[in-house]
Amino acid sequence: LEAEITESSAGSLTDLGEWGLITALAARMPPGPFTSVGIGDDSAVVAAPSGSVVAAVDLSLEGRHFLRSWSSGHDVGVKAAARSLADIAAMGAVPTALLVALAAPGSLPVQWALDFAAGLGAEASRAGAGVIGGDTAQADSVLVSVTAFGDLYGLTAVLRGGASPGDVVAVAGPLGHSAAGHALLAAELPSLSEPLVAAHLRPSPPYEAGPEAARLGATAMIDISDGLLVDLGHVASASGVAIDVGTSLLADFLGDPIALAAAAISSRTEWAASPQALALDWVLTGGEDHSLAATFPPSVALPERWHVIGSVRAGDPERRGGEVTVDGAHRPGPGGWEHFT
Amino acid sequence: LEAEITESSAGSLTDLGEWGLITALAARMPPGPFTSVGIGDDSAVVAAPSGSVVAAVDLSLEGRHFLRSWSSGHDVGVKAAARSLADIAAMGAVPTALLVALAAPGSLPVQWALDFAAGLGAEASRAGAGVIGGDTAQADSVLVSVTAFGDLYGLTAVLRGGASPGDVVAVAGPLGHSAAGHALLAAELPSLSEPLVAAHLRPSPPYEAGPEAARLGATAMIDISDGLLVDLGHVASASGVAIDVGTSLLADFLGDPIALAAAAISSRTEWAASPQALALDWVLTGGEDHSLAATFPPSVALPERWHVIGSVRAGDPERRGGEVTVDGAHRPGPGGWEHFT
Repeated sequence: LEAEITESSAGSLTDLGEWGLITALAARMPPGPFTSVGIGDDSAVVAAPSGSVVAAVDLSLEGRHFLRSWSSGHDVGVKAAARSLADIAAMGAVPTALLVALAAPGSLPVQWALDFAAGLGAEASRAGAGVIGGDTAQADSVLVSVTAFGDLYGLTAVLRGGASPGDVVAVAGPLGHSAAGHALLAAELPSLSEPLVAAHLRPSPPYEAGPEAARLGATAMIDISDGLLVDLGHVASASGVAIDVGTSLLADFLGDPIALAAAAISSRTEWAASPQALALDWVLTGGEDHSLAATFPPSVALPERWHVIGSVRAGDPERRGGEVTVDGAHRPGPGGWEHFT
Repeated sequence: LEAEITESSAGSLTDLGEWGLITALAARMPPGPFTSVGIGDDSAVVAAPSGSVVAAVDLSLEGRHFLRSWSSGHDVGVKAAARSLADIAAMGAVPTALLVALAAPGSLPVQWALDFAAGLGAEASRAGAGVIGGDTAQADSVLVSVTAFGDLYGLTAVLRGGASPGDVVAVAGPLGHSAAGHALLAAELPSLSEPLVAAHLRPSPPYEAGPEAARLGATAMIDISDGLLVDLGHVASASGVAIDVGTSLLADFLGDPIALAAAAISSRTEWAASPQALALDWVLTGGEDHSLAATFPPSVALPERWHVIGSVRAGDPERRGGEVTVDGAHRPGPGGWEHFT
């Protein structure tokens, strides 16, 4: 089989055919420890030890979520897996499995698809999960749908709606790294900070921080996919509270490598404000880091990876909560990303 | 909320925005009896009473799997749900939930998306399942990914690889109806048989037949999505056996409405063979009916909805099984559908 794959990896998907493609992809995606029926039957069967399953799906579309000129097949596989797996961690659950659907042009190089499978399989393995099955189809551009599964191991799911006035707001993982990496790629300065570019192309969510937060008694949690302020807005709305972020608490996020990248970008582009303002913009509104934001009762002693960045206050009763302020003031301008606008 | 949706249903997705779209879709997709956390958080949480979950994903792409000129939004929702739910039933599991990802142009009429959600929700409900969450994105054409979940209720999953020589082969649900309906649409004769056209646009898999087969001791089972002969080939290959289909056993499938449609199509097109040959072709090779084919020990008394159509024999040891014959002979020509060729 290996020899066959090596030989055919020079061609396109049309040369390989559907069953050849599925076989070649499957060889690069380990089933993981939870799978009892994996790739090759009508459905997969995966363990759900707690008697319930946590699940989320995310699309990754060429031209919308990634460009093949910027991202390798491996990059796209890692990022597609990370986006869905972070949603599992954000409930406090342990990732168990991925289902992947891949549509692509018949002219797609087989090697790209194999690299995609390897990236997806590697990120699943990093999260402790396996790849249990999928679907393939032909399309004019590359389309990926990844469904992630997880288990709560008896813990209660941490929802968006449980934050209370007096709670602290904390973040695990970087902020603004993906946005800074995107800016470096767009300015054709990728060599300035390989880690920031990597953070954009291959985000690395802190999966273990999710179940850790659940064990510590987190009252609410969210995957930071659209930007810190937008995603805290979802928590504030669901919880009927207000959240304030203190910029003095963001010092750890605003230093290098973000500061270095902001200085370079602001000197070379038409960005009108200071490098400090650009760095703050990335940290507050940059999406796709897939770090975790959670609220905790103030009495909880937080492990080192959780950085307190703000606090929860009572919401304005007339607005039913949902306000997010920075240093007590509403921040002008868009807070992050919304589709269809 | 209802007034707001009614008003905005006249516009496009761009008018509604992402959150408006999600809210409007969610109102048309009931969460079902197994869901503890539904649409609106990072992930959903759904019951897995047996301690494991059965799961499958299928893509439905505009221009590949459906045409908006033939299929309404409701049709596409029903069919996308049915394709994935049939994979759950084909393992012997009871469907519990769907996750849906929808990408579409910003110009898509809101009413189309609402009809899609209603169709998806209706088919999920017909299967006893609910819609637990999803994802949306913008794309140049309509792309749908549906992940279905199910529970085995303590039964063992019925795989493709368990058929033994001496077993009977039986089918629950229609054969060739989707292919005949497609032919009527292509010939611009849809009024000739509304049930066949409906079978193509809105297949109606016999979900309950899956767990029923598992309880009866089915040795192998598959969802007939690519065509009877191709899908029986998957069973024969996985089981290391040969399967023979007897045309004398197909009489129930070859009568009306198939016979009527075959007579009409063969008289109006350049199809060179007889109406009988066309009908047999639809029944043996037409895909997308999402009926179930299963093998059973010969001692099993089959309920009325299971029609015996063939038998399992020992496979040729040199070929490791996989052969499918019709009346003892290999059938020339393609056996069904394969992507990327």
